[in-house]
Amino acid sequence: EITFNPVDHPHRRYNPLTGQWILVSPHRAKRPWSGQDEKPAADNKVSYDAACFLCPGNTRVSGDVNPEYTGTYVFQNDFAALMPDSPDAPMSDNPLFKTQGVRGLSRVICFSPDHSKTLPELPVSQIRKVVDTWNEQIEDLGKEYLWVQVFENKGEAMGCSQPHPHGQVWANSFLPNEIERKDKNLRDYYQEHGSNLLVDYVQAELKDGARTVVETEHWIAVVPYWAAWPFETMLLPKVHVRRMNELSDEQRDDLALAMQKLTSRYDNLFQCSFPYSMGWHYAPFFEADETIANKGTDHWQLHALFYPPLLRSATVKKFMVGYEMLAESQRDLTAEQAAERLRAVSDEHYKAS
Amino acid sequence: EITFNPVDHPHRRYNPLTGQWILVSPHRAKRPWSGQDEKPAADNKVSYDAACFLCPGNTRVSGDVNPEYTGTYVFQNDFAALMPDSPDAPMSDNPLFKTQGVRGLSRVICFSPDHSKTLPELPVSQIRKVVDTWNEQIEDLGKEYLWVQVFENKGEAMGCSQPHPHGQVWANSFLPNEIERKDKNLRDYYQEHGSNLLVDYVQAELKDGARTVVETEHWIAVVPYWAAWPFETMLLPKVHVRRMNELSDEQRDDLALAMQKLTSRYDNLFQCSFPYSMGWHYAPFFEADETIANKGTDHWQLHALFYPPLLRSATVKKFMVGYEMLAESQRDLTAEQAAERLRAVSDEHYKAS
Ligand SMILES: O=P(O)(O)O[C@H]1O[C@H](CO)[C@@H](O)[C@H](O)[C@H]1O
Ligand SMILES: O=P(O)(O)O[C@H]1O[C@H](CO)[C@@H](O)[C@H](O)[C@H]1O
Repeated sequence: EITFNPVDHPHRRYNPLTGQWILVSPHRAKRPWSGQDEKPAADNKVSYDAACFLCPGNTRVSGDVNPEYTGTYVFQNDFAALMPDSPDAPMSDNPLFKTQGVRGLSRVICFSPDHSKTLPELPVSQIRKVVDTWNEQIEDLGKEYLWVQVFENKGEAMGCSQPHPHGQVWANSFLPNEIERKDKNLRDYYQEHGSNLLVDYVQAELKDGARTVVETEHWIAVVPYWAAWPFETMLLPKVHVRRMNELSDEQRDDLALAMQKLTSRYDNLFQCSFPYSMGWHYAPFFEADETIANKGTDHWQLHALFYPPLLRSATVKKFMVGYEMLAESQRDLTAEQAAERLRAVSDEHYKAS
Repeated sequence: EITFNPVDHPHRRYNPLTGQWILVSPHRAKRPWSGQDEKPAADNKVSYDAACFLCPGNTRVSGDVNPEYTGTYVFQNDFAALMPDSPDAPMSDNPLFKTQGVRGLSRVICFSPDHSKTLPELPVSQIRKVVDTWNEQIEDLGKEYLWVQVFENKGEAMGCSQPHPHGQVWANSFLPNEIERKDKNLRDYYQEHGSNLLVDYVQAELKDGARTVVETEHWIAVVPYWAAWPFETMLLPKVHVRRMNELSDEQRDDLALAMQKLTSRYDNLFQCSFPYSMGWHYAPFFEADETIANKGTDHWQLHALFYPPLLRSATVKKFMVGYEMLAESQRDLTAEQAAERLRAVSDEHYKAS
């Protein structure tokens, strides 16, 4: 009889937030690779680029001129996926052809006037400004919209079409799939266990430590037990916080620090500007929609998700294709192995002297 | 009052197979693109490549030598994500740390000895051999495994690490997420409506025609109403067929023809070897697992899914990142627009004279 060992034996792990399983094949990292190489992320060498739509003072496609901003700068996305005034779609009684009209809007947040600096390279005080801008945007749009998705696509490998450091906010008149599913799973756990799933999870991870990547006074970043992407992480406050606006000044400063440490570890892992998509999940604005009953939000915990695609090096990513698209997400190293590798590098950025 | 128009107004469409919505933003295709370009797919110019692991007569990493095969050729994947004999994982009563031991195996199917030819470039008779090989593999592995995922990753953009035309089969001792979810949704529909969801859907699409890309005597390929990827298609028999082994000789020949037409249209769209992940879904082998009750399979319909990443050209793909990963899939053209574009090109391959 062989005894089960998660480092040698394929297994599945359960993601209680999505209700989905992830196939873990740790022995598979040994296979040779002759597939596509990503272009290594090019450095943005200049602090100001006259051809950049996001640099201060430049003119955008819309004809609007960016101000000479010094901190963060927010503007309406000129090619938004949603519109604030689109009409409702007619109802259909055919379950195979269901359409729903939606409203929303989309804004771009420039993180810094400096074209050459990505998030981990900004001073903590400037990251703090990004945190405050996220919070303002969520507060503002949450008055009208059920859901406000804050996110950053970093690097060309993640479809980022503008090298200037920036993120986006998409406001939605509806609960997107991922949020609806998470709301249900968090609520079910709350009802069954009488406690908050992610608050319980943070406590367990603080005790265990095997998946911890960064710990500051108020925050912890872990490779979740159920991570799908090789170096996926989750960043959470150590106490119960439903939304960003509940964070104290001190917790916000500490968040900026935690983000700098986490993203610096990412960059240090393969000594490159580490691509990822990241974004925030938190209690939806049920109160913004009169058509739904007040559903309560105590089951929610604020958290950021980082989904980085790289697997082996600065140029070889994990492809979530074929089996993954048709059947189930699959990963080639355990969450504990990934956390260990991120802990093994410095939390100070390799470019900082 | 503006009237709703699916070509101008953002909306969501419902996928009854997954229970998920897709955000459709047809006005968005107009935005400029300055993001990553894919390498255009390189042509495999030589019919035989001495350095290829899959060409006849060559030696693989494992040391095994490929026979001088003339049709298809199947071998055990030397770096499988699953193993036939891995031990069970210990049960955990903590809902936040759930692990499951799994068994399975993985095989590679070479489609043709000719290194230079992709699926649409093969003669129909050779595609028919691929169909027969898929069926044999499913039959063989279905005796022991609950699920057998047949798929092809085509092109470097889809993580294909070997240019030689080939696909894979992964056998699983468990029902992967996507299959479990689809089984539930198909079963619920069957119970509620007393008919088969996908058989009903085929009938509706045969009548409508707006999303049809290829129609042969026994098969239809459509851009599903709820497609997520820009040029996603679904290929189905016109009558109720639960598994590949139920197909008649004639239906199999016709499948080979339909596949050739569909994949030729794909290649013709941007005059390139069109990358995609494709695979088959059909009734799982509930009978292979004594621990579960016989669940019946009448609610299932055999179908192939094609998920191609390209959006604008041979080198610009749709990135499912940021908003898509954190919130909901989003597309930039309607299913009807995509089908129209695929119908506008020939179903004979641009390289065939
Ligand atoms: O097995 P391959 O072709 O080497 O690998 C490819 O397909 C697999 C199954 O879809 C994926 O898990 C890998 O990420 C991908 O690179
Ligand atoms: O809005 P961007 O940065 O131009 O576009 C990028 O992010 C969007 C939101 O995640 C995606 O829909 C696009 O596919 C991606 O290229």
